[in-house]
Amino acid sequence: MLAYFGPQGTFTEQAARAFSAADPAHDDLVPFDTVPAALAAARRGEVDAACVPVENSVEGAVPATMDALTEGDPLVAVAETVLDVRFSVLVRPGAGEPKTIASHPHALAQVRHWIAENLPTATAVATTSTAAAARAVLAGEFDAAVSAPVAVRHYPLEVLATDVADVRDAKTRFLLLRRPGPLPRPTGHDRTSVVVTATDRIGALSDLLAELALRRINLTRIESRPTKGRLGEYRFYIDLDGHAAEPGVGDALAALRRHCPDTRFLGSYPKAEPVLRAEAGARAEPGGSPAADEFVAAAEWVASLREGLGA
Amino acid sequence: MLAYFGPQGTFTEQAARAFSAADPAHDDLVPFDTVPAALAAARRGEVDAACVPVENSVEGAVPATMDALTEGDPLVAVAETVLDVRFSVLVRPGAGEPKTIASHPHALAQVRHWIAENLPTATAVATTSTAAAARAVLAGEFDAAVSAPVAVRHYPLEVLATDVADVRDAKTRFLLLRRPGPLPRPTGHDRTSVVVTATDRIGALSDLLAELALRRINLTRIESRPTKGRLGEYRFYIDLDGHAAEPGVGDALAALRRHCPDTRFLGSYPKAEPVLRAEAGARAEPGGSPAADEFVAAAEWVASLREGLGA
Repeated sequence: MLAYFGPQGTFTEQAARAFSAADPAHDDLVPFDTVPAALAAARRGEVDAACVPVENSVEGAVPATMDALTEGDPLVAVAETVLDVRFSVLVRPGAGEPKTIASHPHALAQVRHWIAENLPTATAVATTSTAAAARAVLAGEFDAAVSAPVAVRHYPLEVLATDVADVRDAKTRFLLLRRPGPLPRPTGHDRTSVVVTATDRIGALSDLLAELALRRINLTRIESRPTKGRLGEYRFYIDLDGHAAEPGVGDALAALRRHCPDTRFLGSYPKAEPVLRAEAGARAEPGGSPAADEFVAAAEWVASLREGLGA
Repeated sequence: MLAYFGPQGTFTEQAARAFSAADPAHDDLVPFDTVPAALAAARRGEVDAACVPVENSVEGAVPATMDALTEGDPLVAVAETVLDVRFSVLVRPGAGEPKTIASHPHALAQVRHWIAENLPTATAVATTSTAAAARAVLAGEFDAAVSAPVAVRHYPLEVLATDVADVRDAKTRFLLLRRPGPLPRPTGHDRTSVVVTATDRIGALSDLLAELALRRINLTRIESRPTKGRLGEYRFYIDLDGHAAEPGVGDALAALRRHCPDTRFLGSYPKAEPVLRAEAGARAEPGGSPAADEFVAAAEWVASLREGLGA
């Protein structure tokens, strides 16, 4: 069973279906009302995993997900997927020119120019989700819905237009999260996510990033967020290239943990293609492992000199 | 004239009124449909300044503002203000128990528990803004609106409840932006905002933050964002303690610019109280100027040895 941030018929369900297609164990999809509720179900073991959005190239990070991952029992990401944010416009079969077009305000904002050009006389109406818009069209409340393409699987509506988006490169990234267990195998093209809680001593973040840079580890995303209720503390959400099983990344994670005992591992998992962010590390080191040989050779050297076998 | 991201009756208008109260030059407030439109009016000189939201403690950063500040002609922040996100519930005078309660989905999400406890039978309806909800109530479409407190200035509605919020510490930070000109005077309790565009060479951000840490400059916020259309580049939005007029901060800005010619100054301005973020630098150095004396003394030493007057 796979929990996802619902309702049915949204982009998150579409992401959950992508995860489900990749792993037949997740063939039963269960929508939850909120991100924390979906994650709580995974924490309690009611579901095997949870699918939630983590960042959107237009709307930014999803703070609800970031907070929910940091609080409560640990969950780790085992996969990611990136969806193009392109909508379908759904109408009742045989209906005429739409007079009203409904969707979540975020979605309406992303198709405003399309509506102005293609349905200039239609009034845009806000609903609580893109799926709620499809339901309202089905119920005859409005004439057209701007929805995730997956919505037609649930509602007997007709596709008036598809691939609709003013911003052509809008994307949302989703994570598949599980209770801690065996990590996915390194693929040579992985991402590791970690959240570090640090006191805001001057230079604290500089020290952390120096530990990554000194190990030639590429950072693909960073975001600070104040710690709820604990003044003078920050959380840094960091995505980096590589897998915890790799010597360099493991060494760097140990260094972060030495600096900040509150460091929480959020998983190592294969990067989705096409990537949401440009990643120089991936280009520079197709093996994906930053200087792994050097770390192994150096550790062997220390082991040998400790045994009196070298110098 | 002061432009703001409208419509009338939202928290952004409330922030604009706070700026206006502090500076009588801004007594004429003009709403614009979008953040870029408000900033464009300031760039063209049609208004003296623009007021826009920059981050929210629940919803996160406002990418529209961050992108709009980085593209186009430079604008610099000259003031900030932080508003508690607490709503008023507005009804038509003399109306009975509300059956429907309308607002922007973000606002509805932030008062869901309040509605469940206080208006358990009311249906929540999404509108395009908190102000649109107030207008719809006035028009008789819905019975109650969850709005910014300032909305009652525009609509002859009655306040059913005030200070409404499930999350007690939700806050939004707003900036007042102008075309580049004389900086606000340093107050000893200032913030400097800067956006740095860097190639994603490994260690690029580590180098930038080391320049701040080595000068004992406190970082209060950082966020990475991919550069639109230029693969392999990142933008880092950085807020730091101190004022560009201070020797240490000026020296650090010069260093950032040396590393990244695309560094854009987004202003030095007094910090709003209460602060949105915990700030150790402010506590540690009440003067606000990180080691200013040391920078002056060191520069004088270099000047003197260049003149053969010391060693």
